[in-house]
Amino acid sequence: MMNAAIMGYGTIGSGVAEILEKNKETIRKAAGQEIALKYVLDLREFPGSPVEDKVIHDFSVIEQDPEVELVVEAMGGLNPAYPFVKACLLAGKHVATSNKALVAAYGSELLEIAREKQVNFFFEASVGGGIPIIRPLYNCLMGEEIREITGVLNGTTNFILTKMDEEGWSFDAALKEAQRLGYAEQDPTADVEGHDTCRKLAILTAMAAGKEVNYEEICTEGITRISDRDFQYAKKIGMSVKLAGLSRLGKDGKVSACVAPLMIDKAHPLYTVKDVYNGILVKGNMLGDTMYYGSGAGKLPTASAVVADLIEMARHKDENVKMGWTLEKQELAPMGANEFRYFIRVSGQPEERLADLMAFGPREIISIGQPEEFAIVSKVMSEADYQETALGLEGILSVIRMLA
Amino acid sequence: MMNAAIMGYGTIGSGVAEILEKNKETIRKAAGQEIALKYVLDLREFPGSPVEDKVIHDFSVIEQDPEVELVVEAMGGLNPAYPFVKACLLAGKHVATSNKALVAAYGSELLEIAREKQVNFFFEASVGGGIPIIRPLYNCLMGEEIREITGVLNGTTNFILTKMDEEGWSFDAALKEAQRLGYAEQDPTADVEGHDTCRKLAILTAMAAGKEVNYEEICTEGITRISDRDFQYAKKIGMSVKLAGLSRLGKDGKVSACVAPLMIDKAHPLYTVKDVYNGILVKGNMLGDTMYYGSGAGKLPTASAVVADLIEMARHKDENVKMGWTLEKQELAPMGANEFRYFIRVSGQPEERLADLMAFGPREIISIGQPEEFAIVSKVMSEADYQETALGLEGILSVIRMLA
Repeated sequence: MMNAAIMGYGTIGSGVAEILEKNKETIRKAAGQEIALKYVLDLREFPGSPVEDKVIHDFSVIEQDPEVELVVEAMGGLNPAYPFVKACLLAGKHVATSNKALVAAYGSELLEIAREKQVNFFFEASVGGGIPIIRPLYNCLMGEEIREITGVLNGTTNFILTKMDEEGWSFDAALKEAQRLGYAEQDPTADVEGHDTCRKLAILTAMAAGKEVNYEEICTEGITRISDRDFQYAKKIGMSVKLAGLSRLGKDGKVSACVAPLMIDKAHPLYTVKDVYNGILVKGNMLGDTMYYGSGAGKLPTASAVVADLIEMARHKDENVKMGWTLEKQELAPMGANEFRYFIRVSGQPEERLADLMAFGPREIISIGQPEEFAIVSKVMSEADYQETALGLEGILSVIRMLA
Repeated sequence: MMNAAIMGYGTIGSGVAEILEKNKETIRKAAGQEIALKYVLDLREFPGSPVEDKVIHDFSVIEQDPEVELVVEAMGGLNPAYPFVKACLLAGKHVATSNKALVAAYGSELLEIAREKQVNFFFEASVGGGIPIIRPLYNCLMGEEIREITGVLNGTTNFILTKMDEEGWSFDAALKEAQRLGYAEQDPTADVEGHDTCRKLAILTAMAAGKEVNYEEICTEGITRISDRDFQYAKKIGMSVKLAGLSRLGKDGKVSACVAPLMIDKAHPLYTVKDVYNGILVKGNMLGDTMYYGSGAGKLPTASAVVADLIEMARHKDENVKMGWTLEKQELAPMGANEFRYFIRVSGQPEERLADLMAFGPREIISIGQPEEFAIVSKVMSEADYQETALGLEGILSVIRMLA
């Protein structure tokens, strides 16, 4: 038997407790032994709950109890998650976390401590909710050179964009509905501005590269400027718009990474990733494309990923599993080097404006029957070229990068 | 360094040799040591090829060379694949195979020998080509009770059905094109009659249940009776038809499994699995749905899955990794207990025939403007009920089960 402690009894922490109980027998078989919950650390009490008698308020109880070998961090945020996780690893305990902010900010250091202490720091639940993606990267695709990762990684924005696409709602209306349903926070900034996707993309990119990726260097654009009008054009050419994280390994060893709303064709596997689902497309140099799809959030799916981490820890209790990344820094290519086709929506009519737009090498002209505007699809251009060409051009109503 | 031998230098065997060379450095890092190709066993010579000096014709060289710790079986078929693989395991060598016929027929015995000898018998490439699916089942979803697996597992039939759907081709025309492109064999029986899908479904079901599944007990229907006319009806209601393997764990511990063409709605994640791609949807009791998607066949994707097996063997060279299934038999529910809605296409017109069809509890009547026929969508019925109700009903032109 191994003893576990859960730090933070919110949505995910309580989900982990629930699964440890409900799937006890399956987990015992898979782990080769029982995983028993010994403590729940939280500021609150939970009278009447199944963990009532396990609640503690003092972190040092966990830190100093040698019987606790497995720790789940489900508090979120950096403080006190970071010092608590670090202390647990230094005390020789395995830690599983669902906290992408923690992993993106301090993953390199925490992975290094885990290696020194011969324990494990796992974070399957930090990206893609319940979708297995971290483990496949180090345990299934480990013989591949990962060339490209494209992920719809944020359920909240995907829900909003799906409503705009399928119901014709405005951004504001869709956001309100997401808030009403509890998918979006009252302050939705981290989701709608792409910060959440950015941290997840940094984690995936670091996993693929084996080196530290600084999420602050990833050019990140949110979805607040996407309008229902943009979706009308997208639909006209069989596309949709999704917030995606994209990273590509260049021949020079640098990685181009960005987070932005992307127009995606209906033939693309990510096109069907709708509502709060997530999907992650991974391109290997031998394997080609594989995609991983599932619930990107939600109590039990996310908690299930944490439980998978606990089982793997039990299977490797005296051993640091080779995964993650080193302290070496992965160099990122400047945003200007990224190449896309661009959807460019402008005011005016084609006959009066096309001369201005020739420098974009327009491949397609799209009209949705509005008298005062139209759109073009550009040739493939570098971001730097696009920016330079667009400089000083008047009447640009919106620009959306297109997934090749 | 660990030495490997490849048995069978056809498409997949040569792909494995190619990847071991091209991704040598990535593989060395992932495996913790070099994986060196020592022998290629084949009846033929390969003068001028990169493995020219490694070709041998006598299996006993591999069997008796203690330096060979890793063996790849890529011969296909059961003879001599089965005796060779068994002999390798008995000699204490790890074996990776891409051969679903071998795994479906002798997997239980070979897994048992591997356990006794503390080596590994891996078969990631036997299902879904390059898509990681075997490993996620034992290494990512091991804390879940798997409730349902639905897979588009055969690239050849999926290519044919995609052409029928999107180009309006007849089955014969699509099969000819598949043969011309090398996707289908000259004798396409194993693919179009569903036998290939059946073996793959048996392997996945055994992995999920942890018990042996006899593929001969799985009710299997092919796609030869699907017509372009059926696709016109499917399109009318926003659906497509795909050959799928389906297994569901019942409350009584029995598994309902079948292989059949299924009508799939465009909102379903498997709907977009087109051409030679495969997709596998796995439903866990806590996790909900996850899907795994990628190239279901092809030299390098499939070989990449074999190489992943080799790396995992190198990581666990002195240890049998807990995976697979036991000799205990998984009981299958009779086909009659399976529940579906049914698409039923009949001759005649609704006004003259609906009375006959009331026992199917028609939920929808579909017309594609043909004067002499129409179709209905039935209520959810057990297969036994459906068969009994259909007995003696005249003028049934086609019946296709629908994915709920």
